[in-house]
Amino acid sequence: MGDGVFETIRVRQGRPVRLERHLARLQAGAAVLGIPARFGEAEIEAGCTSAIAGNAVLDGSLRISLSRGPAARGLASPVAPNPTLLIAAHKANATSEPVILLTARTTRRNEHSPLSRIKSLNYLDGILARREAEAGGADDALMLNTAGLVAESTAATLIAFAEDRLWTPRIEDGALPGIARQVLMDTALVAERVITPDWLARVPVMFLCNSLGVRSVSALDGRSLKERPELLDGLRKALEPDRF
Amino acid sequence: MGDGVFETIRVRQGRPVRLERHLARLQAGAAVLGIPARFGEAEIEAGCTSAIAGNAVLDGSLRISLSRGPAARGLASPVAPNPTLLIAAHKANATSEPVILLTARTTRRNEHSPLSRIKSLNYLDGILARREAEAGGADDALMLNTAGLVAESTAATLIAFAEDRLWTPRIEDGALPGIARQVLMDTALVAERVITPDWLARVPVMFLCNSLGVRSVSALDGRSLKERPELLDGLRKALEPDRF
Repeated sequence: MGDGVFETIRVRQGRPVRLERHLARLQAGAAVLGIPARFGEAEIEAGCTSAIAGNAVLDGSLRISLSRGPAARGLASPVAPNPTLLIAAHKANATSEPVILLTARTTRRNEHSPLSRIKSLNYLDGILARREAEAGGADDALMLNTAGLVAESTAATLIAFAEDRLWTPRIEDGALPGIARQVLMDTALVAERVITPDWLARVPVMFLCNSLGVRSVSALDGRSLKERPELLDGLRKALEPDRF
Repeated sequence: MGDGVFETIRVRQGRPVRLERHLARLQAGAAVLGIPARFGEAEIEAGCTSAIAGNAVLDGSLRISLSRGPAARGLASPVAPNPTLLIAAHKANATSEPVILLTARTTRRNEHSPLSRIKSLNYLDGILARREAEAGGADDALMLNTAGLVAESTAATLIAFAEDRLWTPRIEDGALPGIARQVLMDTALVAERVITPDWLARVPVMFLCNSLGVRSVSALDGRSLKERPELLDGLRKALEPDRF
């Protein structure tokens, strides 16, 4: 049933980047689902260290999955849940190449569900949108919410450059509260706004960011966008981990 | 990622009820997700027979799960998918007792997603709604769609008796195309309509039905409903398998 939450964490120089923030979000998401806190942060951190060392990962990523654990048939939560934690370390770095985006038409993000605000293991709408984008020759899909407003891509925050500022969709419009997104907002580099598809259709420069990096958007729905290397560099610098 | 579909099938006298319809819906759901048809109907049917016999199930249920199978990290579908099929048989019969319903406030069904029309393994909104209902002393949750219209309960079709007729929410409003629901509509016993919470608040008699049976609703949001045993019997008779 995909009854759990996960985190994807960048690994740099053999260490997880912003691990505390990721673990805080993991626990907050588990609380939304009512998954009891069986694993403490120190225990999860030790698991991460061990996964990184065991796989000799210098640059790459960690994936932490926390599920409610075994349950009987049906939707009722187990009376005595025994949550399962899975930590995997991957060597491959995420691509930093420009990305071609297509607006998904087959499905929408549900901003009326708390699931739009946590990284749950229910990812089928994103998978459907990604499949639609790939079938249309794109790399990723831009997802709208049920009201038709822009929310995010299937796995990254959208950043749009307009009126001499960087803008990103609001959490209440279905954007996942991304950790990179929050870092950029904390530095006042990026601000939230309601983003309609019509407004976005006139924006010449866009980026996608998540914990694995920042990428330029080279095209949206067949319209070529402009590159702005100095803005891309600025975003990447703002996201460089000052401390681990 | 809960990247798959499932079916819950009643077993009576050691035989699955309406298996053809369930297998057709399973394959249709897999097609929506783009999961290739690795298993033929005869093969799945043989698996069902074997699960029923192996567990000596006379009355109970079958659960068939079909997932896309192993994939790499990320949202991209595997290039050469190897779908996984899991069939489990259970002896326990579903309860036929009246059910206390509470309207879920924490989440909504997304009628804008194709997932609202297939039995996917992404069931977290239903799990959240069920938890909310149980925390409020109810047995199950009534779910609204993102427009605030009534869709269904977390695992059953809602049937409301009003104006001397039986009514059920529309597919386009977020109701799952249930097999029991379709049987009842085919016999013209139940008709679709737009159901608002306000309209439902004045309805004195309701039922829930799915492939495992029909139950009376004894209360909705703290308001006691009336029992109508002759209507309940009529629904149950209409759903009796004339052939297996």
